[in-house]
Amino acid sequence: MSETECGRFSTISRETISNVERQLSQPPSVWLNLTGARIIENEGQFDKDIALPNNKSHVTHIAVDIGGSLAKVMYYVCESSSPSSSSSSISEAENYTGGRLSFMIFETAKIEDCIQFMANLIDNHVKNCNKKKITLIATGGGAYKFYDRMSKQLDIKVIREDEMECLIMGLNYFVSCIPREVFVLDLDTCELTFQNHLNCYHYPHMLVNIGSGVSILKVTGPSQFERIGGSSLGGGTLWGLLSLLTPANSFDEMLELSKGGDNTSVDMLVGDIYGKDIGYERFGLKSTTIASSFGKVFRERKPLEEFAPQDISRSLLLAISNNIGQIAYLHAQKHNVQNIYFGGSFIRNHVQTMHTLTYAIQYWSNHTMNAYFLRHEGYLGVFGAFMKYATSQPSNVPVPSIS
Amino acid sequence: MSETECGRFSTISRETISNVERQLSQPPSVWLNLTGARIIENEGQFDKDIALPNNKSHVTHIAVDIGGSLAKVMYYVCESSSPSSSSSSISEAENYTGGRLSFMIFETAKIEDCIQFMANLIDNHVKNCNKKKITLIATGGGAYKFYDRMSKQLDIKVIREDEMECLIMGLNYFVSCIPREVFVLDLDTCELTFQNHLNCYHYPHMLVNIGSGVSILKVTGPSQFERIGGSSLGGGTLWGLLSLLTPANSFDEMLELSKGGDNTSVDMLVGDIYGKDIGYERFGLKSTTIASSFGKVFRERKPLEEFAPQDISRSLLLAISNNIGQIAYLHAQKHNVQNIYFGGSFIRNHVQTMHTLTYAIQYWSNHTMNAYFLRHEGYLGVFGAFMKYATSQPSNVPVPSIS
Repeated sequence: MSETECGRFSTISRETISNVERQLSQPPSVWLNLTGARIIENEGQFDKDIALPNNKSHVTHIAVDIGGSLAKVMYYVCESSSPSSSSSSISEAENYTGGRLSFMIFETAKIEDCIQFMANLIDNHVKNCNKKKITLIATGGGAYKFYDRMSKQLDIKVIREDEMECLIMGLNYFVSCIPREVFVLDLDTCELTFQNHLNCYHYPHMLVNIGSGVSILKVTGPSQFERIGGSSLGGGTLWGLLSLLTPANSFDEMLELSKGGDNTSVDMLVGDIYGKDIGYERFGLKSTTIASSFGKVFRERKPLEEFAPQDISRSLLLAISNNIGQIAYLHAQKHNVQNIYFGGSFIRNHVQTMHTLTYAIQYWSNHTMNAYFLRHEGYLGVFGAFMKYATSQPSNVPVPSIS
Repeated sequence: MSETECGRFSTISRETISNVERQLSQPPSVWLNLTGARIIENEGQFDKDIALPNNKSHVTHIAVDIGGSLAKVMYYVCESSSPSSSSSSISEAENYTGGRLSFMIFETAKIEDCIQFMANLIDNHVKNCNKKKITLIATGGGAYKFYDRMSKQLDIKVIREDEMECLIMGLNYFVSCIPREVFVLDLDTCELTFQNHLNCYHYPHMLVNIGSGVSILKVTGPSQFERIGGSSLGGGTLWGLLSLLTPANSFDEMLELSKGGDNTSVDMLVGDIYGKDIGYERFGLKSTTIASSFGKVFRERKPLEEFAPQDISRSLLLAISNNIGQIAYLHAQKHNVQNIYFGGSFIRNHVQTMHTLTYAIQYWSNHTMNAYFLRHEGYLGVFGAFMKYATSQPSNVPVPSIS
């Protein structure tokens, strides 16, 4: 097992590196006005921008969060004073009336596209200011892996921030400052109910961040948290297995496939073991409960082509979501936490995924715990990195203090 | 999701059925002498028989445990008085000197082979007794699914027993009465240390039974237990996925494949995200820690043929074993249990599987919990079913009382 084969490397910890970098650098000190922030609803895109109508400050930094599978970029765009045009700019342009926070996503395997996007953002849109004033705040593992490459190609200052700190700060800001960001899913109707946590953001809570893998964080204060667990069965597992088992070429295609699938053609249900319509009532296992994910496949001895990709996609999505839900519940119970926020790009606001996670939490906790989701679920880290250098104290919302 | 689509069926509970059956039947009442029981070591087979040198009683029942993937048969064979020959018999033959408990395994998909084996066992070897005296004790879901078929084809009395009760009883007897049955694995040397629990079998403990799916039972007394959890990610998942992803035709072939594999060609390690030899030390994640099982596959966009089946097998075996280990640990912690027994046919005494489970338990519990394995790991249920009708009170071992 890889864990046990590990040697010990003489490396300086990233905490130390971050501290030194912070001392050496003069990070931008922006005061970003989040008052009146709102998600821009009617533009049709998946990754919705956030309007900041009252911000007047100049923003001279962009942020990137580079995970194992996906890289997320966030930047500020000034709205032009002319209502008919908005200039995409992170500049010190004059005469604007507020702006918006924009988000972009790239595959980490195509990191060059991401770096090129940031280069264009910097080169083309920094019209009136000195390029050297622009800073890139980078987080996620790729902030280290691609540090030299980004520094060289972008030719600007790159500051690295701890990814878990950024996740927590991003969550804090999303929950505290962005209306209609956080929601719960009704299991019966599949309707969303947006939570107005702006005035009731309690500690402790838990963040289950599902990217390539899973990290589980217990949050006890605005900047107090610990990583209490994780799992290697996450988004990367689903994407990896489905890329081998189905013709889908993207994660969205896989999710789309799963919508039309019937997992019971590959999953072994309790009723498949006990007999049709017979459950194992003594222990609350209904005939329709999944006893073994993919448990029917081996005994049917059919080649891959004879299984529907839709069924395979649905089975694996259920298996991984349910497993994450169970582990999340067990950790929440161990740490006496009631409110669980699910983040990370695995979820992609996909109804089946959120349904399975919610069901798992409610089922095992006997409805004593709550599962929350975020519309910008995949951008917690990059939002946190961005906000680390954009001190915000809007008057109408209780903003967590940032250490 | 299957769980939520469940209707309510007007069925009589299996507990009730069992009780009625027990009242109507006159189960065989054997006193099986387990004194001096020992595993027969030198016959080379995987599923080792257990010698009962001091038993003189006639055994007129056989047992079968039919799970979702595998069916296990157990029967008693009288040793002939002539040392040169042993007759395979569950009869009332005279002049024998002890006997042995024998085990056989079949795929549930080939249940006909299993029934035929039992029919032969009954028809060919019941030489001197009335066939009607023979009873089949059946457990597992298949005891219900195949009840009519077995009753009709075998033409003997079939008594059904609850599968979890049988698991617990089987565990009790294996731990209490069979020397060199239970062992722990040393993570450094991979050596086995057999446990002599015969005089120190403590409660509470936990049984994690890994068949097609996983059941987790907390045992608080000889016949007191509850099912505290489970997972659909079990043996059936591994077998099902690997039958689609590799050319292996049996579970043993899959395990054999995994021995020569390198999971790091498909798993995404922390070092793949942060950069070579760079870990995430702040949270104890080494560069060699698996961040995402199968996490490298999607981004490499290679067809299945270009991945080594060995690597895929190893990755999936690690992922599922580790996941079970983590869930087992979380349940053990929640219930304040230190000793965890792993059973079920998934393990198959495979060193890598046991290593991963042991590592998971020791790692997460900070070496405060123990992982135990059994040589007859897959036969707990069938052994328990068999022993329900073979009251045993050997003088030299503390046998748990059977309710």
